[in-house]
Formats: sequence, structure tokens, C-alpha cells
Amino acid sequence: MAFHLLQHDRHAALQIARALEHAVSSIKHCDLCNTLTEQDICRTCSNAQRDRSKLCVVETPADQAALERTLAYRGLYFVLMGKLSPLDGIGPHDIGLQKLFDRVVPKDDAGLLMPVESREVQEVILATNFTAEGEATAHVISQALKSRGVQVTRLARGVPVGSELEYVDLGTIAHALVDRR
Amino acid sequence: MAFHLLQHDRHAALQIARALEHAVSSIKHCDLCNTLTEQDICRTCSNAQRDRSKLCVVETPADQAALERTLAYRGLYFVLMGKLSPLDGIGPHDIGLQKLFDRVVPKDDAGLLMPVESREVQEVILATNFTAEGEATAHVISQALKSRGVQVTRLARGVPVGSELEYVDLGTIAHALVDRR
Ligand SMILES: [Zn+2]
Ligand SMILES: [Zn+2]
Repeated sequence: MAFHLLQHDRHAALQIARALEHAVSSIKHCDLCNTLTEQDICRTCSNAQRDRSKLCVVETPADQAALERTLAYRGLYFVLMGKLSPLDGIGPHDIGLQKLFDRVVPKDDAGLLMPVESREVQEVILATNFTAEGEATAHVISQALKSRGVQVTRLARGVPVGSELEYVDLGTIAHALVDRR
Repeated sequence: MAFHLLQHDRHAALQIARALEHAVSSIKHCDLCNTLTEQDICRTCSNAQRDRSKLCVVETPADQAALERTLAYRGLYFVLMGKLSPLDGIGPHDIGLQKLFDRVVPKDDAGLLMPVESREVQEVILATNFTAEGEATAHVISQALKSRGVQVTRLARGVPVGSELEYVDLGTIAHALVDRR
């Protein structure tokens, strides 16, 4: 791509350089949900139509986009911008966990944790990936929030819509069996 | 395959013919679970170690095998040997529905339906495929059994173990959201 730009389209190369420069200087994290945005508060968080009592925790903006496409969710999001991964040296401080906790269980003017009934967020829905690292991240968040009286739920694990059991992996079937409704 | 046998291995052809003949004359349906077997009652149904209060309904022996591989289920099975498919002209009489109903809600000596507490099967787990036809089949069975006081559950629908939300289809994510736990 670099060779193509230098050989055939130096004007486009300059445009890309400037767009990147602009992005680096103007894009920051949303104060509320931690996603990338040019505003202080992103468009989703400032949308008055959304249900502010629900907060869905995802790993990346791409995961948030996947949930948005379903049109099945009208609450808000918190984007971790990563996941816990001890093997790669990524711990709670490297992703937005403290920011998430402060968001869900804010302190009042006296510096004390707000009681459940005066909090805006009434349910935290964990939508981290169903990989080992995503599950570990969900577990850590769940433990921390439950101990502060927050209602925490997790996306259902199970057999994907449209699929035949014969071709579904063992772990998924086992979970679908345990979580039968 | 036929050409190969006739040209190079007429002995094997004869063996296949005899095996097929034997199968046709000796393989029948298990009296209890409807699967294919050479006995009156198949090996699974006659296994005294299994939990006889749970009955898992599957479409085919291959689906039963998939569930068995998980080692997560110790109950018994009922194999429909098909699924409802009105477009193909396959109705309730073409699959083992009546046999299933008689199995779950048997009649007593006086010809009356047994009351819940004297029935062997206490829970029916619907494990038909998560396709349109499998869902329709599950729906019909569920309606019929619930109206006779049977506890009916369905394998959980949701996000498969090990997968990343970004690559999961919309319908599955929407279900996982609705069925969050
Ligand atoms: Zn935001
Ligand atoms: Zn049997």
C-alpha cells in the first residue's frame, strides 16, 4: 500500500497523513463509556432515547457495533478497550476497570459510595467475548460489582440460532444443557 | 464404488449385500426411545445407571451421539427419527410424536392418563435442532406436553463457547441478550 501511494498517488498519501494527524490530536475517550470519540461525551451516551439504567460492558467498539446491529438493546454501553490477559501482562489497570466501577458505583459529594437506590445504573450486562480471556474479564467484573450490590447478568451461552446439534462443539452443547430454560 | 466392487472385489460386494440383508431383517426401533437397534430395548434405555426421570428429545441418532459426547447428560432419550416439515408433507404422524406422548404420559390399567406424580418421566428436555423445522417441532411437542402437566425445557440458545461477538450472527446475539442470566 505504501509503495502504491508513493509511486502513483502522492496526493492521497498526504491526505492520509493529515487525516491521521487530525485523528491523533482530536480523538479521545468518551468520559462516560470510554469508547473513542471526538466529543467529550460520545453520541450514544448523549442520546436521550436510551435506557440509562442498563449498562452493557463490551471489549471493543466492534463488539458494541455487533450488539447495536441486533436492534435488541436500548441501554448504554461501557467499552473496556481491551480484556484482562495476564499472559500478555494486561491487568485490571490496563483496561478501563476503575473507570467502569466509578461509573456504576459513583461516590457522592462526601466521597462515600452511593447506595443502590440512588445509582443511575441498575443492571450491568456483561457482553465480553466467550473466549478464555473474555470469560475471565467477565468474572472479575462480576465479582467486583456484585460485592457492591449491583445486579450483574451475562449474555446467554448456548446453541447458535439456525444450527444443527450434530455440528456444534461439545462445550457449547454442554453449556446449553446446563442453562436449559 | 459399485464399479470398483464388481471389477476388483466381488467377495466384498457379497459381504456388503449380506450385511445389508441382515440389517434390513434384524434392525428395528427401540420400544422405549424409538432409535434403531437390534434389541427390543436399546442399550441406552436398558442401562440401569441412567436417570430415568429425564427424557431428552432429539431428531436423529447422530444428535443423540453429539449430546452423549459431552458427558454432561445422564438421563434417557427419545429419538423422533425426523422432524415436522409441513412443506415436505411430514406431519405429526410421520415422526414418533404419538409414541413420545404415550411414553411420557402413559395410560394406567383403566385406560386413563397417569397423574403427574406416578409418571416415570418428570422433565422433557427438547434438543431438536435450532433450525426453523427443529424449532417448530419443539414448539408442537412443548404445547402438547405442557397441557398434560409435563415440565418441558429447551436447550439454551446463545453465543457458542469460544466465540467473539463480532463474528456471531445477529439473531444469536439478540437471543443471548433476551435470555441473559
Ligand atoms: Zn460514550
Ligand atoms: Zn432405547
